[in-house]
Amino acid sequence: MYQAMASLGHAQESSYRGPLELGKARRGGSVVILGAGLAGMTAAYELRAAGYDVQILEYQDRAGGRCWTLRGGDSFAELDGTRQTCEFDKGLYINPGPWRVPYHHYALLDYCKRFGVQLESFVQVNYNALVHSTQAFGGKPQRFRHIQADVHGYVAELLSKATNQNALDQAVTQEDRELLLEGLKAWGGLDAQYRYREGTNSSEYRGYDIDPGGGLMPLAKPSKPIGQHELLQSRLWSQINIGQLYEFQTAIFEPVGGMDMIARGFERQVGSLIHFNRKVTKIEQTPQGVTVSYVDARGGSGGDAAQQVRADWCVCTIPLSILSQIDVQVGDAMKAAIAAVPYGASFKAGLQFKRRFWEEDERIFGGISYSDLPIEQISYPSNNFNAPGPGVLLGGYAFDDTHAYEFTSMRPQDRIRAAVEFGSQLHPQYKKEFQNGVSVGWHRIPWINGCFGIWSDEARKQHYRNLCQVDGRIVLAGEHASYIPAWQEGAVLSALDAVKRLHERAQAA
Amino acid sequence: MYQAMASLGHAQESSYRGPLELGKARRGGSVVILGAGLAGMTAAYELRAAGYDVQILEYQDRAGGRCWTLRGGDSFAELDGTRQTCEFDKGLYINPGPWRVPYHHYALLDYCKRFGVQLESFVQVNYNALVHSTQAFGGKPQRFRHIQADVHGYVAELLSKATNQNALDQAVTQEDRELLLEGLKAWGGLDAQYRYREGTNSSEYRGYDIDPGGGLMPLAKPSKPIGQHELLQSRLWSQINIGQLYEFQTAIFEPVGGMDMIARGFERQVGSLIHFNRKVTKIEQTPQGVTVSYVDARGGSGGDAAQQVRADWCVCTIPLSILSQIDVQVGDAMKAAIAAVPYGASFKAGLQFKRRFWEEDERIFGGISYSDLPIEQISYPSNNFNAPGPGVLLGGYAFDDTHAYEFTSMRPQDRIRAAVEFGSQLHPQYKKEFQNGVSVGWHRIPWINGCFGIWSDEARKQHYRNLCQVDGRIVLAGEHASYIPAWQEGAVLSALDAVKRLHERAQAA
Repeated sequence: MYQAMASLGHAQESSYRGPLELGKARRGGSVVILGAGLAGMTAAYELRAAGYDVQILEYQDRAGGRCWTLRGGDSFAELDGTRQTCEFDKGLYINPGPWRVPYHHYALLDYCKRFGVQLESFVQVNYNALVHSTQAFGGKPQRFRHIQADVHGYVAELLSKATNQNALDQAVTQEDRELLLEGLKAWGGLDAQYRYREGTNSSEYRGYDIDPGGGLMPLAKPSKPIGQHELLQSRLWSQINIGQLYEFQTAIFEPVGGMDMIARGFERQVGSLIHFNRKVTKIEQTPQGVTVSYVDARGGSGGDAAQQVRADWCVCTIPLSILSQIDVQVGDAMKAAIAAVPYGASFKAGLQFKRRFWEEDERIFGGISYSDLPIEQISYPSNNFNAPGPGVLLGGYAFDDTHAYEFTSMRPQDRIRAAVEFGSQLHPQYKKEFQNGVSVGWHRIPWINGCFGIWSDEARKQHYRNLCQVDGRIVLAGEHASYIPAWQEGAVLSALDAVKRLHERAQAA
Repeated sequence: MYQAMASLGHAQESSYRGPLELGKARRGGSVVILGAGLAGMTAAYELRAAGYDVQILEYQDRAGGRCWTLRGGDSFAELDGTRQTCEFDKGLYINPGPWRVPYHHYALLDYCKRFGVQLESFVQVNYNALVHSTQAFGGKPQRFRHIQADVHGYVAELLSKATNQNALDQAVTQEDRELLLEGLKAWGGLDAQYRYREGTNSSEYRGYDIDPGGGLMPLAKPSKPIGQHELLQSRLWSQINIGQLYEFQTAIFEPVGGMDMIARGFERQVGSLIHFNRKVTKIEQTPQGVTVSYVDARGGSGGDAAQQVRADWCVCTIPLSILSQIDVQVGDAMKAAIAAVPYGASFKAGLQFKRRFWEEDERIFGGISYSDLPIEQISYPSNNFNAPGPGVLLGGYAFDDTHAYEFTSMRPQDRIRAAVEFGSQLHPQYKKEFQNGVSVGWHRIPWINGCFGIWSDEARKQHYRNLCQVDGRIVLAGEHASYIPAWQEGAVLSALDAVKRLHERAQAA
C-alpha cells in the first residue's frame, strides 16, 4: 500500500512508519522506567512486548504526566503547598496540558487506534470567534472572518493593481498573468474592477450585516470591509494565521471525554507495571546495571528512607527541569545537555459559566479567540454543542512567560478573578455568568517545574545528540528529547527511538 | 443580552431573532400543510402552537423530504421504477440531500437545540485531503496544504516585491508599508529576503518531506514548493477557497447519526399530524377556504379515487418542480412564478469500502477532496475516526448538471462502477477495497424531479415576491421560497415567514 501511495506522490517520509517491531530480546533483561507519562508508558509497552521485565516508577499517584484532565473533585498542590480543588459540574473538564492531536502525529494516533481511544474534531479555527487587540478598534473585539476576508481582499486588490500596472512583468509571464488575476479576484472577493469593496463578493467571505432570509424577510445587507489602513494598523493579521500552520491544520483532534483518555488507554495496557508515589533521588550505573534510589513521594513517617530498584537498563523520562536537580550518574556530555534546556512557564485557567453564552448569544461553537491580553486565548468547547446548563471555557492560556508569571504570582482565587476580568473585555457576559475556576501554573507544579523544554538553535547544535545517546545503560526519552517539543507525539517518538536503540545495545551486550 | 452584544459590535441583524411567537389565534382555524419536509413540519409546529387545527399531507411514507439519510436496508425507486436498496453495514450511511449545517443557520440550529438533535463538527476543510485536475501534474492529485501554502507564498512574494519596488506607493502609505511587508512575510512563509523558497518557513505551512521526529530519528526535511508557473497553470487555486466562504466556514456541523436526525426531531413534535402516502392532485380555493384533492401515492386498487381535505388555509411546501405540474388555483402572478424556477439535477453516490483506507494509508480524516472529474468531490466521514472495519465515503457529488446527467443516464450499477473508476484516480485503493454503493439522481426522484430551485437574478426580480405573497388562502414555503436555496435554513426561514404572514391575514379575516 505504501508503494502505491508513494507512486502517486501521496506518501511522505514519516518519522513513524507503523508499529515498532523490536523482535524478541535475545535474553531476558530488566528495565526500570522512570516516569509514567506517555514516553514512559510507550517505552514500557514496547519493551515488555519484546520480552523485557519492566517496571515503572512514577512520582505522582496517577499515570499520564502532562496528559492530564481536570474534572470536578480533582485536587492538586503547587510548589508552596497551595491546594486547588476543581469545582466543575459533572461531565465538564479542561486539559491543563496538551489539548489537541494533529493528523500527522502518526504514532500517537496509531496508539489511540490500537488502544481504543475515541477521537473527535477539535475546532481550531472558528470564523465567528474573536480576534482582539487592546490597541485597535478602541479595544473592541473583531470577528475572525472579518479580519481574514479583509486581509485577503486587500492583498488581492493590491497585487491585482501591481499586476495590471505591469509592475510585475518580470516576475509573472504574460501567460500566467490572466490566471493570477482570475485567481486573485475569486479568492479575494474582488469586484469586476478588481476592487475590494462592500458588496456581495466580499460578503460571501466576511458575512452579511443582514443575512439572506426566507419568504419576504428583509433583503440581505452586505457588510462593510474595514479600511485598509485601519486593518493594517490593528496588527490583527498576526492572529489569523495559526490554523494554516502544519501543527494546527485540520484535521486536528481531541479525545472524546478529555485528553487523559489517552493516558488511560496506555494505562489499560501497562498499568500493572507502574509503582506510584516513587520520588527518584539518585540514578547510578555500573557496567552491569542501573540502581535507582527513591523515597515515598507522599512523605510522612519513613518517607525519607531511600529504597532502591536495580535493573539491567534504565529509560528515564523525567523532565529535564527535574532531572537536572537529581544526582544522575551519566557522562559529562549528557550531564551538560540535561542542564542546557530551560522550561516554559505556561499558565492555563478553566472557567465554568452558568450557560454556554458563547453559543447562545454569540454563535461561537468551538474554536479559539485570540487577544493581546495576558490570557492570550479563550477556547470554547468543541463538543456537546447546544447543550443546556453550565459549560467550561479554557479562559486563558498564557504561553508567553511574562503573561504566565503575571498570573502565577497571584493566589489561585486572584488568578481566576483576573482571568474573568480580562475575558470580560471579549465577552461582557463573563461577570454575570461566572461560577468557578481552576488554574495550573506549570512552573509551579512540583513534578515538573515547567511546561516543556525550550531548545534554542544553539543548544540543539551543542547538546541534542548528547542528550539522546544511550549513556552506558541509561537512555532518556520525553518531549524534551525530540524535535516536536511540547507535543505528545514528541514524547512517543522519542520513546520509540530510545527503546529501539536501547534494545540494539542490549542485544549486542 | 442582544443589546450588550450590539454595543460591542458583535451582533448582526439576523433573519432569525429567536423562536417565533405568533400569539394565540383569535379564533380557531384549520390549516392543511402540503409536504412533511422541514418547511412543512416547521409550519405545522408553529401553527399548532398558535392554536390552529393542523394536518399535513405527505407524498412519501416518511417525513423529512430532502432531509434524508440512506442506511443499509433502505430502498427507493426512481421515475422509471428502477429500485435501489442500500447495502451498507449497520451504522454506516450517507446523506443524499443536505449534509452540513453552518453556524449562522440560526433557525435550524435553534430547532436542533429545542428538539434535542445532537450535533458534531463537520470537517469541510482538510489540509491533507486532495485537490485534483486531470489537466495538471500529469493527473496526479495534490495535497490541499501544498496548494494553499504555495498560493499564499507566491502571492506574498509578488506583493512584497511590488511593495519593495515602490510600485504601490500611491495605494499604501509609508506608515502602512512596513506592516504590510511584515504581515506578508509571516502569512506567506517567506524567508528574510521576502522570497518563497524551500525551507522551514514554507514547510511550517505546507508540511515536511520528513517530519520532525524524536530521539535520533532522521532530521526533518523541508518540502519543496511547486513552481509558480506550474501552480498557476494547474488552476487548482480554484479548489481551495470554498472553506473560506461564509456558507462553508467553521464552525459547521452535521447531526450525530445522519442528517435525518433533524427530520426525526421535528417528527417527534408533529408526527401525529402527518398523513403519509397522499399524492396531491389539485389545490382549489374560494374566499371561504381551501380544498386539496389527493390520491393514494402507493397506487393500487382505488388509488385513483381522489379524496379531499378542506381547510381554512393552506401552506404548500411542494417543490416548484412538482407544483408546476399540479392544478393550483392561484393568481396569474403566482402561477407564473411557480413556472419560472428550474431545478438543479444533482447526483450523489455513497460507496462502502472494506476499510477506512483514506485514514489508514493516507491520513485523511474527514474533509473533502475536489476534482475536475464528474464525481467532483469525495467526502470522508467526519466521525468515528480510526474505526476498524468498513467505512462509507460520499464517492461523488455532481453538482454540475452535465456531470449529474453523465451519471443518471446510466443504470445504478453502472453509475457506481463509474464512480469507483473515477475515484481510483485519486485513491488507487478504490478497486481493491470497494464493497457496494448506492446513488441518488435527484432529477429522477419522483417526489421532487430535481434537487433545488435555481433562481436567476432576472427571475428573482420578476417572480420572487409574487411567489411568496399570500394568494387568497394559500401561501408557499420551502427553500425555493427563500434567498438561501438548497439549504435547510432556507426552508425553515421561509416557513417561519410564511406562517407569520398567514397568521396576520387569518387574524384580520
